[in-house]
Amino acid sequence: MSPKTPKDSCTIITDLVLPSETNPIGNMFGGELLARMDRAASIAARRHSRRIVVTASVNHVAFNKMIPLGSVVTVEARVSRAFTSSMEIFLDVWIEDRESGLKSKANEAIYTFVAVDEMGQPVKVPPLTPETDLEKERYEAALRRKQLSLVLAGKMKPENATELKALFLR
Amino acid sequence: MSPKTPKDSCTIITDLVLPSETNPIGNMFGGELLARMDRAASIAARRHSRRIVVTASVNHVAFNKMIPLGSVVTVEARVSRAFTSSMEIFLDVWIEDRESGLKSKANEAIYTFVAVDEMGQPVKVPPLTPETDLEKERYEAALRRKQLSLVLAGKMKPENATELKALFLR
Amino acid sequence: MSPKTPKDSCTIITDLVLPSETNPIGNMFGGELLARMDRAASIAARRHSRRIVVTASVNHVAFNKMIPLGSVVTVEARVSRAFTSSMEIFLDVWIEDRESGLKSKANEAIYTFVAVDEMGQPVKVPPLTPETDLEKERYEAALRRKQLSLVLAGKMKPENATELKALFLR
Amino acid sequence: MSPKTPKDSCTIITDLVLPSETNPIGNMFGGELLARMDRAASIAARRHSRRIVVTASVNHVAFNKMIPLGSVVTVEARVSRAFTSSMEIFLDVWIEDRESGLKSKANEAIYTFVAVDEMGQPVKVPPLTPETDLEKERYEAALRRKQLSLVLAGKMKPENATELKALFLR
Amino acid sequence: MSPKTPKDSCTIITDLVLPSETNPIGNMFGGELLARMDRAASIAARRHSRRIVVTASVNHVAFNKMIPLGSVVTVEARVSRAFTSSMEIFLDVWIEDRESGLKSKANEAIYTFVAVDEMGQPVKVPPLTPETDLEKERYEAALRRKQLSLVLAGKMKPENATELKALFLR
Amino acid sequence: MSPKTPKDSCTIITDLVLPSETNPIGNMFGGELLARMDRAASIAARRHSRRIVVTASVNHVAFNKMIPLGSVVTVEARVSRAFTSSMEIFLDVWIEDRESGLKSKANEAIYTFVAVDEMGQPVKVPPLTPETDLEKERYEAALRRKQLSLVLAGKMKPENATELKALFLR
Repeated sequence: MSPKTPKDSCTIITDLVLPSETNPIGNMFGGELLARMDRAASIAARRHSRRIVVTASVNHVAFNKMIPLGSVVTVEARVSRAFTSSMEIFLDVWIEDRESGLKSKANEAIYTFVAVDEMGQPVKVPPLTPETDLEKERYEAALRRKQLSLVLAGKMKPENATELKALFLR
Repeated sequence: MSPKTPKDSCTIITDLVLPSETNPIGNMFGGELLARMDRAASIAARRHSRRIVVTASVNHVAFNKMIPLGSVVTVEARVSRAFTSSMEIFLDVWIEDRESGLKSKANEAIYTFVAVDEMGQPVKVPPLTPETDLEKERYEAALRRKQLSLVLAGKMKPENATELKALFLR
Repeated sequence: MSPKTPKDSCTIITDLVLPSETNPIGNMFGGELLARMDRAASIAARRHSRRIVVTASVNHVAFNKMIPLGSVVTVEARVSRAFTSSMEIFLDVWIEDRESGLKSKANEAIYTFVAVDEMGQPVKVPPLTPETDLEKERYEAALRRKQLSLVLAGKMKPENATELKALFLR
Repeated sequence: MSPKTPKDSCTIITDLVLPSETNPIGNMFGGELLARMDRAASIAARRHSRRIVVTASVNHVAFNKMIPLGSVVTVEARVSRAFTSSMEIFLDVWIEDRESGLKSKANEAIYTFVAVDEMGQPVKVPPLTPETDLEKERYEAALRRKQLSLVLAGKMKPENATELKALFLR
Repeated sequence: MSPKTPKDSCTIITDLVLPSETNPIGNMFGGELLARMDRAASIAARRHSRRIVVTASVNHVAFNKMIPLGSVVTVEARVSRAFTSSMEIFLDVWIEDRESGLKSKANEAIYTFVAVDEMGQPVKVPPLTPETDLEKERYEAALRRKQLSLVLAGKMKPENATELKALFLR
Repeated sequence: MSPKTPKDSCTIITDLVLPSETNPIGNMFGGELLARMDRAASIAARRHSRRIVVTASVNHVAFNKMIPLGSVVTVEARVSRAFTSSMEIFLDVWIEDRESGLKSKANEAIYTFVAVDEMGQPVKVPPLTPETDLEKERYEAALRRKQLSLVLAGKMKPENATELKALFLR
């Protein structure tokens, strides 16, 4: 399988925040954003693999910025690293102010998807070749995140997570 | 404020998986489950604090088990630790087989909510007193998770995350 | 088939009232509550019978209490009596005040479901053994309600509805 | 207030049954039909009263006929009797076969609505003058149903429900 | 196939405008109305043809009147002309004022549907016989609209669109 | 107001076709696509004008290609010409084949939006400067379309629609 770039899987969902998606003080529910990001990430993973894909995990997501009713929210998803049959997807979420037109970063998130066949069995996916500096940086960090994920799931001993360990022993 | 127990905030959402919530191989979208868990967790946080609450973060969530169309999914949310104005919510997700009636664990997840006033400013929440062994264990681990969260957000240096560091140096 | 208890089928759906579910004066539509109760009752009936179940009837439902936007609504469903292939489900609906945390009863309702096979033909269900006093009371009353249902459907002559007749001749 | 006829409030909702509204054997959820009927009935009550209206009660509803996925369902609602501030709404539900075009009756239901002001206080509604034989019949029966409703709610003693008592003593 | 009249396919969808369907100044999204009209038109086309039907085109639609939150909107769809396998559907949209009960025309629209078999291949539909003056007028105009549609799609040369040309050379 | 380019308002909505959005032969409802396009177009109009915007009209839309369940649909909206307070938005709709990754054009559509203030009164919008050849071509054609729109609405006599007349007299 010939390698692909993050641009090949870039997926954009732009949409308004509607009243039924907001809490009592008029901000978007975290759960709604998680669901939109899952939709964008699944399409990016599908574009990379051309296979059926299923959500394997979601990394730690922080909601630092409230997203008010009526905002235009742009979710951008790109495959940031491909493993044997899994893909890490990096998401950038932007909101923009209607009057000034200024865009600001609202969130980042990282989802992992697995490509499967019709029976739900994992299948191989093409490798990823990062191009820009940001893409290369995310590509490198993906390995550390994969180790953290394995440690948290009890599938790797902390002492073997070499990439991760380095982070805490610096 | 007098302390509360995890039982005081226990919130249960039981529901079917509908066709509009499933992927091409007939399993529930990860994003739908994330949204349901956010709803359950927000109600648990509100029951503990009796305040407006907003999602602050979601910990790493692994989707180890596919949840087929037509399943009965039970999401149980309980406050697992209260800090000054934030609360960690532990979620257990169960699915049951229609014919045998057997329940099995499908997922665990951890959300953090912050209690706010009408202007969105953080307010104090009551402390939590864990009762059962499992509740005590989750209460202890919550501190480690908070440190990990701060480290990942760049708000705490890894070498100061004493609880977390211990995990990797065992 | 060994008998089951109401506790075995107990199903809880807790959820917020969203803006898209309210009328012009900010209270939950009756129809939304009827739909939520149907979902809870269908899961309870399925848990009792471990079969596909279909709504057979809804008893008289009174909406005595308005349920304002943003309320936390808890719907609890339990099988209250099992007949050959039909089950009566008793529903209790609670709302709670965010600030005081006080719960109050908002509604009661009674749905009847029938267990069917894949072709839609009725199949037998296990008997129900009530345990608490309230469960026993509801179990007894279920027979009167079934007669009323048959009379209203023109399938039983009023003069043969012995249980029901007694009610009006006391 | 000048009287109105059932035709004045006649409200029709025609719609398809979608996949997200059906159970595992492909038939419309009872709860979905209850919600559609509530919407039609509320518009009929509003047309009669020209006021904000709220659901007060739903009479016994039997689901005698399964409504398969893809069916065209027509819900017709008309005010069948007006009391001081409440209105009884009679609903007829039809489904039609796509190939033969034959319509058949799927359900009947009776909802009661109350007209209220902006504060939720009951207000007077115009009287109803039935015109056709069927409308007159439903108008007469509405009084019996109101008594049954009061009896079931414990607001009228069975022995005072003269209209209703006659039914069981014939 | 014996001819049918516009009345035979008349389809009415009456419904409220909900908060999740309105823009920041409280009026119904144009896209929501387009979707409701498509549902009504598809049922009318199905009633005329008794076949599976698919949207082929939507004529120019002008939104001259804002439709505020809480309005009762009535969409009426009728087949206005049948061609070999396509049908033109004329839609009239009414809104009514709650207090005065006055109805006013909010929109008109024209959709074209094609009847197809299970494989998606076009099949013949019955002819239409208009009855009222308005129906006859719409029937006549339908041919002009079909020519405009063909011209816009580049499937007919403007100079051959005799009906349409007359319009501009008067 | 300084002029903007079509790129400034470019809005992309990528999403899957879900089961609840498809007809009996598994293709996306035309009405769903019309609603998605309205959402994309409204965001593009808002990005150009930085104002509240309302749908004014939809040009003739042809549905030449069926869009099957599970497709990834990409809707791209760009302002194609700005008038005093109205904006024409050109939409391109693409679908892609999961296995081959090939994209194909599924639809084009043209919506017109008006920028308004909080009272719903029209306000001025910046001019548009087309850049690419395609953008220039669409910019030119927009005037013809505006005339057609005015003629169809009875607001301009056909003989005065110089741009349009030329089309039929070539």
